[in-house]
Amino acid sequence: MKKNLINIDPSDKTPIYKQIYKEIKERIDRAELVENTKLPSIRQLSMQLGINNLTILKAYNLLESKGYIYKKQGSGVFVKKRELSLYFEPPKDVLESFKGGETVVQDTIDFVSGTPSKSILPFDEFKDISIKLLERDGVDLLTYHNTRGYDQLRAHITERLKSRDIFISKRNLQITSGAQQGLDLILKVLLSQKNNKVVVGRPTYHGALNTFRKECKIYSVGMDRDGFDLEELEEILKEENIAFIYTMMDFESPTGISWSDEKKEKLIELAERYNTYIVEDDCLSDLYFHKRKLPLKSLDRENKYVISIKSFSKALVPGIRLGYMILPDELTQKIVSAKFTSDISSSGLNQRILLEFLESGTFDKHLNKLRRLYKKRYGVVREAIEDSNLTITYDIEGGFYVWIALPKGIDGNIFYLNCKKAGISILPGNVFFLNEGRVTHFRLSFAAADEEQIVEGIQRMNKVLFQMTAE
Amino acid sequence: MKKNLINIDPSDKTPIYKQIYKEIKERIDRAELVENTKLPSIRQLSMQLGINNLTILKAYNLLESKGYIYKKQGSGVFVKKRELSLYFEPPKDVLESFKGGETVVQDTIDFVSGTPSKSILPFDEFKDISIKLLERDGVDLLTYHNTRGYDQLRAHITERLKSRDIFISKRNLQITSGAQQGLDLILKVLLSQKNNKVVVGRPTYHGALNTFRKECKIYSVGMDRDGFDLEELEEILKEENIAFIYTMMDFESPTGISWSDEKKEKLIELAERYNTYIVEDDCLSDLYFHKRKLPLKSLDRENKYVISIKSFSKALVPGIRLGYMILPDELTQKIVSAKFTSDISSSGLNQRILLEFLESGTFDKHLNKLRRLYKKRYGVVREAIEDSNLTITYDIEGGFYVWIALPKGIDGNIFYLNCKKAGISILPGNVFFLNEGRVTHFRLSFAAADEEQIVEGIQRMNKVLFQMTAE
Repeated sequence: MKKNLINIDPSDKTPIYKQIYKEIKERIDRAELVENTKLPSIRQLSMQLGINNLTILKAYNLLESKGYIYKKQGSGVFVKKRELSLYFEPPKDVLESFKGGETVVQDTIDFVSGTPSKSILPFDEFKDISIKLLERDGVDLLTYHNTRGYDQLRAHITERLKSRDIFISKRNLQITSGAQQGLDLILKVLLSQKNNKVVVGRPTYHGALNTFRKECKIYSVGMDRDGFDLEELEEILKEENIAFIYTMMDFESPTGISWSDEKKEKLIELAERYNTYIVEDDCLSDLYFHKRKLPLKSLDRENKYVISIKSFSKALVPGIRLGYMILPDELTQKIVSAKFTSDISSSGLNQRILLEFLESGTFDKHLNKLRRLYKKRYGVVREAIEDSNLTITYDIEGGFYVWIALPKGIDGNIFYLNCKKAGISILPGNVFFLNEGRVTHFRLSFAAADEEQIVEGIQRMNKVLFQMTAE
Repeated sequence: MKKNLINIDPSDKTPIYKQIYKEIKERIDRAELVENTKLPSIRQLSMQLGINNLTILKAYNLLESKGYIYKKQGSGVFVKKRELSLYFEPPKDVLESFKGGETVVQDTIDFVSGTPSKSILPFDEFKDISIKLLERDGVDLLTYHNTRGYDQLRAHITERLKSRDIFISKRNLQITSGAQQGLDLILKVLLSQKNNKVVVGRPTYHGALNTFRKECKIYSVGMDRDGFDLEELEEILKEENIAFIYTMMDFESPTGISWSDEKKEKLIELAERYNTYIVEDDCLSDLYFHKRKLPLKSLDRENKYVISIKSFSKALVPGIRLGYMILPDELTQKIVSAKFTSDISSSGLNQRILLEFLESGTFDKHLNKLRRLYKKRYGVVREAIEDSNLTITYDIEGGFYVWIALPKGIDGNIFYLNCKKAGISILPGNVFFLNEGRVTHFRLSFAAADEEQIVEGIQRMNKVLFQMTAE
């Protein structure tokens, strides 16, 4: 434990032992202090801080009673194993953001939400299509649909994928109730079949982390500007029998980066060599600013190693709760069985609405609109960040996630809390890491914030920084 | 193995060894012969059947090569363990029935489907409500909804439950994407928390059996006219730490019976005494012919032991893919977390449509119509069965499942196959049992067959029986 672990503020009215308790507790909560880390002895800490032995003892006793530390006779005091159930809960920020059917928290500038604000959603088109289908398809809208998905929708998507150099048969396409269900089905099938070891990026999408935490042993690999550190990945693959590698390829959360074509090729080679799957979580690839990226799946020429999960929440409407998976042959039957036991089939009404969006060209028109909008917003973000003490870590070429670095010496947790007070919501860096408390960065999403809010929000953040350095 | 295991038909052109192979294989497939059962030796069987040693050897070798039996040096020939994956697949009949978005197989009288035929579905009402909401709620229809479910829908259902003597708080109500998702969430939460042992009826709903088979150790309890054999249940609860007891209370699949009020009370007492949960799968309780039954949940006065899963597929429309769960306090947070990782939230559009159905009284009107319709159909079933050689095992007071007994001496599997040839689909009895090959019964559902089809279908079945006894 570093010497500067504990900051005591004598002017604070909180009792000293409680200040010590709180500081250590928070470091454990943030996983900066991990399981079995040895804490300084009571004597050591007492000397370091110049504080009475009994005060330290009181703090340690409180930590012990709350289940944060354990004492081992003769060896000292250690950080306790964190309960898995702690991980299993979705982060409160995320659950909160779903409350009341809205993603925008009132009176707050929302840099958290990964879903477009209401004003962007193509409601008029949705309404016209729905009414058309109610007239045209009648009672067929209300029956159970095929567990694999609505047949015509699957046929249309299979056809559509050809233009992206993905040549699969309709039977490799499974419709899901959103991309999250895709992840859930993969866990159901792959974890029972192989083992429970998965690899993710460092950082990686926090939603996936939370999903995996309950059941998987998670390995993480460093993330560069152009994708995973593949040498580090290969070291893991050599040692461990990995069920699958999870990643986003384009404009990923939280870093915003895209994998280079070279690394995509190499990733597939590694999956082949070490006989594992790659799970590609694709929610943003349609939202490129300049040109479409090479799909990973198009490089998986034998259709053996890549499982693609596609979401329509970001590119169309979140409420439609639909996505699809592109599956290697050997998984199609297992996945459809798991889908059956999960929810039998996805809503037929929504599937038919989605098909009409795709067939009529309305979806493509909407995508074009979003691309222009997000590209413009990103320009505003860039300009505003340049005028601030913050730094964009990687320039992005699509999507709406930006990985922002804080100035040196700024504590990311305190920054996060101060932002909250100032009416700005962000996701602090540490939620994207397995068990490192790296809070030098945060994720800024501009999906739900308009240009005015972006400028205002970044100005407020800069003010927060100024106050923090002035204090 | 009983002497009459093998029926050899010398007039059949199939080689004798293949006839023997097929008969044994089918008994294993139907789990009439279970794992590690000793088969007669080649010499014994040869003598019993009066057939050459080498023919028996040939049959046994084929069974071995197909993975049905194993030979143990010096001890004989035994039935091999069946692969779990065999169980994990939903029965083909069920998957087939979902293909193409329809539940009715063409040119066949459908006594399998548990969902109403299209002509019964309230499409006009659905259309009017949808158009009304598209005009009224606008873009709010398209956003993510709360993971627990649309707030106003949960409030309405909570209120509505009071008239059934179920007094819970809104927070105990979780909206699901159909009842099947309810089962899936329970497995996710209870199996990780406690253990993997569950109790079901003998027989029980085959969909639940298939869901449990992958992950659970299943115990079964005999089923009487008024519910479980509770003495047998208590014997299991005494010995084993059971995660939950699964059952339907009203008009259950496949027997059609309802639990008596006395047994409901006793079941809850047992759950309390042995500290376990009861999972009540309620898809049919609204469809009573005379009067509503006492809800099990209303007897769970502390809201601690009963988890109710409610489906709207049978009582409203299957395609809406919605249901709800009533949860004890200690499970609400765990279930909402599991729901989040399963599919984030259920379709907001569908939830708002459902609420409008409930609030406007359209749902209740539709239920009344269904009750009259099914009551009338059951009368037709009863009359037709009386005129046949079949027997209704238990008189039903609601729903649309009837458990029919075959005349003595009729092989249920052959009857099932002959019905198929005659254009009648039924579910043979054995799919409702864990590992007994009881095929003396079958389930007849009249949800999707109209009066004319019922009469015609039962007449055809009687013809099949006549031919089978004449042969």
